[in-house]
Amino acid sequence: MLDQRAENAAESQGFVRDYLLYLLAAASDSVSAEFHTRVREHGLRVPEWRILACLTDEDGQMVTQLAVLALMEQSRLTKIVDQMADKGLVKRRNDNRDRRRVRVFLTARGQDLADRLVAEARDHEAGIIDQITPERSAALKDVLSTIIELHGGMKQPGTPAKVLEGDHE
Amino acid sequence: MLDQRAENAAESQGFVRDYLLYLLAAASDSVSAEFHTRVREHGLRVPEWRILACLTDEDGQMVTQLAVLALMEQSRLTKIVDQMADKGLVKRRNDNRDRRRVRVFLTARGQDLADRLVAEARDHEAGIIDQITPERSAALKDVLSTIIELHGGMKQPGTPAKVLEGDHE
Repeated sequence: MLDQRAENAAESQGFVRDYLLYLLAAASDSVSAEFHTRVREHGLRVPEWRILACLTDEDGQMVTQLAVLALMEQSRLTKIVDQMADKGLVKRRNDNRDRRRVRVFLTARGQDLADRLVAEARDHEAGIIDQITPERSAALKDVLSTIIELHGGMKQPGTPAKVLEGDHE
Repeated sequence: MLDQRAENAAESQGFVRDYLLYLLAAASDSVSAEFHTRVREHGLRVPEWRILACLTDEDGQMVTQLAVLALMEQSRLTKIVDQMADKGLVKRRNDNRDRRRVRVFLTARGQDLADRLVAEARDHEAGIIDQITPERSAALKDVLSTIIELHGGMKQPGTPAKVLEGDHE
C-alpha cells in the first residue's frame, strides 16, 4: 500500500522535479538563499561576497580571470569591483608586465571581512554536510566538479590557477 | 611525482573550489547556460521556459504555487505571466472556488512549444547523464532532492502537488 503510493508519487513527479538542471538550480538557490541572508547582514551584496571569496583564494587576480571564477559577466564584475574600491574593500593595480591589464587586490579591511565571511560560510556548509552525511557530500562535490570541468564553468584559456605565481608583489 | 603534483593541486585549491555552495552554483550555471542558448533560439526568455516547463507538469497552477516551483519572486512571475499571455502562450483564469486566486493555463501554442522544449531538455540532460554515468546521475539527483527538501526549495504550505485534482476543468 505504501509502496504503491510511493510509486504513484514517483510517476506523478513529472518532468521538472526529476530534471537535473532544475534540481541543480533549485538546490543551489535554496542553500544559497540561506547564506546570502548572512552576507547581507554584513552590509555586503552577494556578488561582492563572491568576489571577496575568490580573492581570498588568490589575491591579485586579473579582472578577466576573476569574472570567470566569480560566475559573472566581465562588465558587471568591473562595475562591482569599482564600487568595492569605493567602499575600501579592494584596490586595483595595473599588472607589472602588461600595464593594460588590471589586477584586483584585497585591502586590509576587505581581507578582514572576507576572513570572517569565509569562516561563517564553512560553518554553514558544515551543517549541510552533516545533514546529507560526509560521504554523500564528498560524492556530490566530486560529481559537481566533474560537471564544471566538462561544461566549462571554470575554464579560461591562458589563465590556469597558478599563473600568478611570481607575477605580482 | 604525479601524486605529489595532484596533492599540491588539491592543497592549492583553497576555499572556493571546494565550497559546496560554490560548486552547486557553478555546476548549475555551466549546464544551464548551454540549454538556455537553445531556449533563446525558440524566441523564449529563460523565466518563460521555466514557467512553461512547470505548467507542463501541472497545468492550471496558482500564481503563488508556480512562483515557488519556478524559483521566482511572485511579483516577477506575475509580470512574466502577463507578457506570456500577451504572446498567446498562457491564459489566466480565476479559480472556481476562490475568485481572488488566479490560475495559469497553457494555450495550445504554449503547450506545443513546451512539448518541443521539454523534448530538447531531455535530450540535453541525457548527454550530461551519459558523461557522468547514469549511476552517479541517479545519486546526484537523489542528494539534490534531499537538499531541496531540507532547505525549503519546493516547500509551500497548503499546496501539495496533488491539490489541484478535481479543482479545475
